[in-house]
Amino acid sequence: MTRFVSALNIAQDIRSGKRSAASVMQAVLATIRTQDSAIRSVTHLFAEQAMQQAHAVDAQLARKEPLPPLAGVPFGVKDLFDIKGHVTTAGSIVLRNTPPAAQDAAIVGRLRAAGAIPVATLNMDEFAYGFATDNAHYGITRNPHDTSRMAGGSSGGSAAAVAAGFLPLTLGTDTNGSIRVPASLCGVWGLKPTLGRLPREGAYPFSASLDVVGHFASTLDDLQTAFYIMADTAPEPEPQTLRTACLGGWFAQNLTPALSAAINRVCHHLGLSGTVELPQTPTARAASFLITASEGGTLHLPRLRTVAEEYDPATRDRLLAGAMLPASTYVQAQRFRRWFRQQVHALFEQVDVLIAPAVMCEAPRLDDPTVMVGGKPASARANLGLYTQPLSLPGLPVLCLPLANTGTLPLGLQLVAAPGREAALFSLARKLEQAGLAGRCPLPEQQAA
Amino acid sequence: MTRFVSALNIAQDIRSGKRSAASVMQAVLATIRTQDSAIRSVTHLFAEQAMQQAHAVDAQLARKEPLPPLAGVPFGVKDLFDIKGHVTTAGSIVLRNTPPAAQDAAIVGRLRAAGAIPVATLNMDEFAYGFATDNAHYGITRNPHDTSRMAGGSSGGSAAAVAAGFLPLTLGTDTNGSIRVPASLCGVWGLKPTLGRLPREGAYPFSASLDVVGHFASTLDDLQTAFYIMADTAPEPEPQTLRTACLGGWFAQNLTPALSAAINRVCHHLGLSGTVELPQTPTARAASFLITASEGGTLHLPRLRTVAEEYDPATRDRLLAGAMLPASTYVQAQRFRRWFRQQVHALFEQVDVLIAPAVMCEAPRLDDPTVMVGGKPASARANLGLYTQPLSLPGLPVLCLPLANTGTLPLGLQLVAAPGREAALFSLARKLEQAGLAGRCPLPEQQAA
Repeated sequence: MTRFVSALNIAQDIRSGKRSAASVMQAVLATIRTQDSAIRSVTHLFAEQAMQQAHAVDAQLARKEPLPPLAGVPFGVKDLFDIKGHVTTAGSIVLRNTPPAAQDAAIVGRLRAAGAIPVATLNMDEFAYGFATDNAHYGITRNPHDTSRMAGGSSGGSAAAVAAGFLPLTLGTDTNGSIRVPASLCGVWGLKPTLGRLPREGAYPFSASLDVVGHFASTLDDLQTAFYIMADTAPEPEPQTLRTACLGGWFAQNLTPALSAAINRVCHHLGLSGTVELPQTPTARAASFLITASEGGTLHLPRLRTVAEEYDPATRDRLLAGAMLPASTYVQAQRFRRWFRQQVHALFEQVDVLIAPAVMCEAPRLDDPTVMVGGKPASARANLGLYTQPLSLPGLPVLCLPLANTGTLPLGLQLVAAPGREAALFSLARKLEQAGLAGRCPLPEQQAA
Repeated sequence: MTRFVSALNIAQDIRSGKRSAASVMQAVLATIRTQDSAIRSVTHLFAEQAMQQAHAVDAQLARKEPLPPLAGVPFGVKDLFDIKGHVTTAGSIVLRNTPPAAQDAAIVGRLRAAGAIPVATLNMDEFAYGFATDNAHYGITRNPHDTSRMAGGSSGGSAAAVAAGFLPLTLGTDTNGSIRVPASLCGVWGLKPTLGRLPREGAYPFSASLDVVGHFASTLDDLQTAFYIMADTAPEPEPQTLRTACLGGWFAQNLTPALSAAINRVCHHLGLSGTVELPQTPTARAASFLITASEGGTLHLPRLRTVAEEYDPATRDRLLAGAMLPASTYVQAQRFRRWFRQQVHALFEQVDVLIAPAVMCEAPRLDDPTVMVGGKPASARANLGLYTQPLSLPGLPVLCLPLANTGTLPLGLQLVAAPGREAALFSLARKLEQAGLAGRCPLPEQQAA
């Protein structure tokens, strides 16, 4: 399979007869089989079913039936989305004896109805609790740009599979940054939609009041097309004029020089001077963290009482600690959240899109999993969400775009809008792409070519 | 002051010139000063300001200016509503050094705008945490029907002041039953409106996700009139036909024979046979209790860290215990609440008003504060909310009506509707009043007369 081929291009090639759906699928399966051992993004391949469905698309075309928009497009799902007939494991062995899913997860069903074909489940931190995709049961997912580096998490397999060119489109979830962190480290497009905008049915939960389902894509067009299909709405008109502002304060600290320079180029291009600040950002980050720990811990507590030893050790300890947090902490966090949401909404009366870094640096090395915080090395696992966690709390839509030409390793930017204003994000992202400031980071072998 | 005179009668007397507002107010103040020592319903009298405002009403009338609907009507407030210029103490000494309220609580302001005059603050369990109105700082409020018995709580002063004939209208709050329990034990009309329907601004909070402000009245007309004034809406049309049902299961257990017989008379009059049941009622009660404990504990935790010894011992221990509940308990309770709300809402597709007991028996004696649960005596404080707590959880409006002719001591009934359907409650209450099944229980001296 040609790398960097987009979902829309694949659909167009199949519709026009340039390639058959079966040949596309064969190539995808062959690529994954030969190349994923170096990346470990895939946890399960639906090879036979996927081939059957590809043949069905070709048969439809042969009968000259109209094809839906993504007919024959292969996609992958984070290992926590239900696929009818398959046991959803959520990156764990704890669920291995649960019955197979009776139906597809809601957004899987919508993509399938649009003709797309699920090909694989993709690696993740166990039960989505982590930023590393370092899974005791299914292994570490490596960064396709440099396999000695982290892919990020918890939707790391989903980001890596797109970055490696295995699949043009993959699904993920984002509670504290689990789409944005790996999108940034792997240099692909990622979207965490508005909290509540996409249906979560059939996605294994983590934190009920923060979980968002979303996706990764090869191109901005793919990202946008898949979003409206999954939202089950017609594409919304993009605003003609956009008021933008850079987030300062918390979001301007701890950046590498390369990332600072890239953000400055974006600000310069947009004619922005000065920054705006979110109030009490460290508290917002803490509140998001504590709500996640409490809700995640509560969800798993009955099972931890009986089969704790089956959990990934890293996940187990955090879930147990979360389950033991006092209610006063949780109630305070939700109370702060209401206040913070009001403050942030007020900001959006003055501005349409806020710009912030996604992660402070390029992907950390697996043998030195640290990032620099306050001038000192600190745990990457604990700090990769520094800029994503505070933005989770108010439930805003965030598009994570790959910055162009920042060096050999990807760096990502968060574009943030008011709830329901994904169209503004697509609009600004397109402007930045057209200006050569955003775009997928090529893989080393492509840079050499 | 004549006992049992209603707010609307007072307003009519003043408007027609039959009595001056000043003479009404003088009589109210004199009655409270001479008779409240036996009841202890009042914690503070606004004697001077109330007389000034009464004179202002008389002056308005003399100038032939139009009078608002409740002009000159005296009312009282539970000691947790802000009265401009007065320190809100919430039944505690902890708040004694806080600044005076800069403005009236929202519903106090709406009553004042309708011409009513705040006369007194009324006793309560400290910080509204209790069903006894047994307050370490302000004393025990006694039941006007038998001063050796409990008035109920936490809005016990508000219920007793109406029952004693001191005031025709008083404000209270209801988190787990704090309006309904004392209304039932004191034999007056009480309304816990739909969660969120009346503004809570200026009412000292207890449990943010359960607190409701409401009121007690001498007559059903007063209850209804005051409700629409406080809701700032025109009276809503009452439904012509009402589907009613009695709640069985949990709500049919532990009743005294007198209460069972009274409920049977109501059911017989309405032609009801059989009952409907709420699912998992004990869990609903537990969830309401746990959410209250967590939210109340969280609210007071910072102050408990510094001035715990100033709290009422009964309140302090419960707040400390509440603050130490694990978040997993709270998260589970809120999760159950969402499910329970859906189940209860579904019931209201088949029925307009549900009927349930308010408290299982008449007011317990102060020297034997027990009620019978499962055939054994159990703490009254811990069990008076048996039927009110499960109905708090889904946020439904509940009217507590005094059953007529049940003996010498009052017994109350809960009428329960779907959210926002207070009009259905007023309609059914009026039917039952007209049938002689509901109405204020006369005081012993009036029974003798």
